[in-house]
Amino acid sequence: MIVKNDLLYYENLKIYQDNESFVFSLDSVLLPKFIDIPKSTRKILDIGTGNAPIPLVLSTRTSAKIVGVEIQSDIAELARKSVLENHLESQIEIVAEDIKKTTYEAESFDIVLSNPPYFKVDENSYLSEKKSKLIARHEVALDLESLVKIATKYLKHNGIFGLVHRPERLADIIDICRKNKLEVKKVQFVYPKKNEEANIVLVEAVKNGKSGLKVLEPIITYENGKYTEQIMKYFKGSE
Amino acid sequence: MIVKNDLLYYENLKIYQDNESFVFSLDSVLLPKFIDIPKSTRKILDIGTGNAPIPLVLSTRTSAKIVGVEIQSDIAELARKSVLENHLESQIEIVAEDIKKTTYEAESFDIVLSNPPYFKVDENSYLSEKKSKLIARHEVALDLESLVKIATKYLKHNGIFGLVHRPERLADIIDICRKNKLEVKKVQFVYPKKNEEANIVLVEAVKNGKSGLKVLEPIITYENGKYTEQIMKYFKGSE
Repeated sequence: MIVKNDLLYYENLKIYQDNESFVFSLDSVLLPKFIDIPKSTRKILDIGTGNAPIPLVLSTRTSAKIVGVEIQSDIAELARKSVLENHLESQIEIVAEDIKKTTYEAESFDIVLSNPPYFKVDENSYLSEKKSKLIARHEVALDLESLVKIATKYLKHNGIFGLVHRPERLADIIDICRKNKLEVKKVQFVYPKKNEEANIVLVEAVKNGKSGLKVLEPIITYENGKYTEQIMKYFKGSE
Repeated sequence: MIVKNDLLYYENLKIYQDNESFVFSLDSVLLPKFIDIPKSTRKILDIGTGNAPIPLVLSTRTSAKIVGVEIQSDIAELARKSVLENHLESQIEIVAEDIKKTTYEAESFDIVLSNPPYFKVDENSYLSEKKSKLIARHEVALDLESLVKIATKYLKHNGIFGLVHRPERLADIIDICRKNKLEVKKVQFVYPKKNEEANIVLVEAVKNGKSGLKVLEPIITYENGKYTEQIMKYFKGSE
């Protein structure tokens, strides 16, 4: 991964970003690599796609159709620019819309993914953040429960819901998923260092799935002040 | 930790065990080390105490009264022998009874712990196991939901429920706990090797607690075919 001005290079992809409001993050690489993509997969939805890192990275793993929905039109524009730059316009469609207002056919997607806003809104949220960052990082436009309800509505039977979030919310995620016919089947934790608490959790739930959870091997981000080899592989895209 | 015939040495403790039916395990050391013990703690209950490894290890951390309840009377007898051997009879009480038949006062314990049977019962369970192992390992005498209901009944407001279990059941644990006023606040995963799935989860829930989960640093059991230093510290008791 190399960043040059507003362009970021990942595998053979070029991804446009606005460093002021939206930076490509580890989360965006981890989720599309973590998720199971059954061979039969035809349609994937990415909710809150931002500058489309998830659809772009996914395109290295599947030729299924990917729809990325982003509420902020200027960021969606950036996403479209990257899609064109990478000649992926026949695979990836970017839609500038509020996901709550979309009217896709129910049960029409095989996979629904999201790297949603992490933070609950409080008074300070509005004071400290630029608006585009606020929407991307805080539950202003979309809270966890609304997200899960939309995901389950659009997912086929046995469809896969993939989420990257903060471990702090894991009990809520499991609970809200169950109440919406999604069973969490696989999780993976990212620990910044081997002796620190996890700061990221990757979650895979299956619509109408049976209970029974797998916890994949730990991902450790840093060792001796540098990225671990494990993380470098993610960034290089060889994992 | 040293095992000599039917005696096991751990820190300054001697623990009797019957190698045929009950062996001191990593789980039993991890749980009493993992759990928070507030200074105000007066009474602790260990459900399904077996040969009492949890009460014995706990006695190195607290002087609170500990009650260990074990349904199998011969194993409870072994537990009593260890308690006497370690001169802990004023701190640890072993009760040979079915926990479902106990009549302690509601909300009378500060902490309730359990290393319960892990496996759901199926037909094969009855074929493959000696009876004492069957009860200790399978949900014959006590299933997860009954355990949680008993724990919450006996716990004070803000009391702590500690559990060691298989990650496979974590979604069930979180769900069943919430339905019984217990909020899972802290978990820790044990991975046999750094590139393998977790095989043990330690869980701490708080009665009437607010949502918000911490995932502690990973515990890795083996590296290069040997116990890691991290695990050796647990066995030596210095962690």
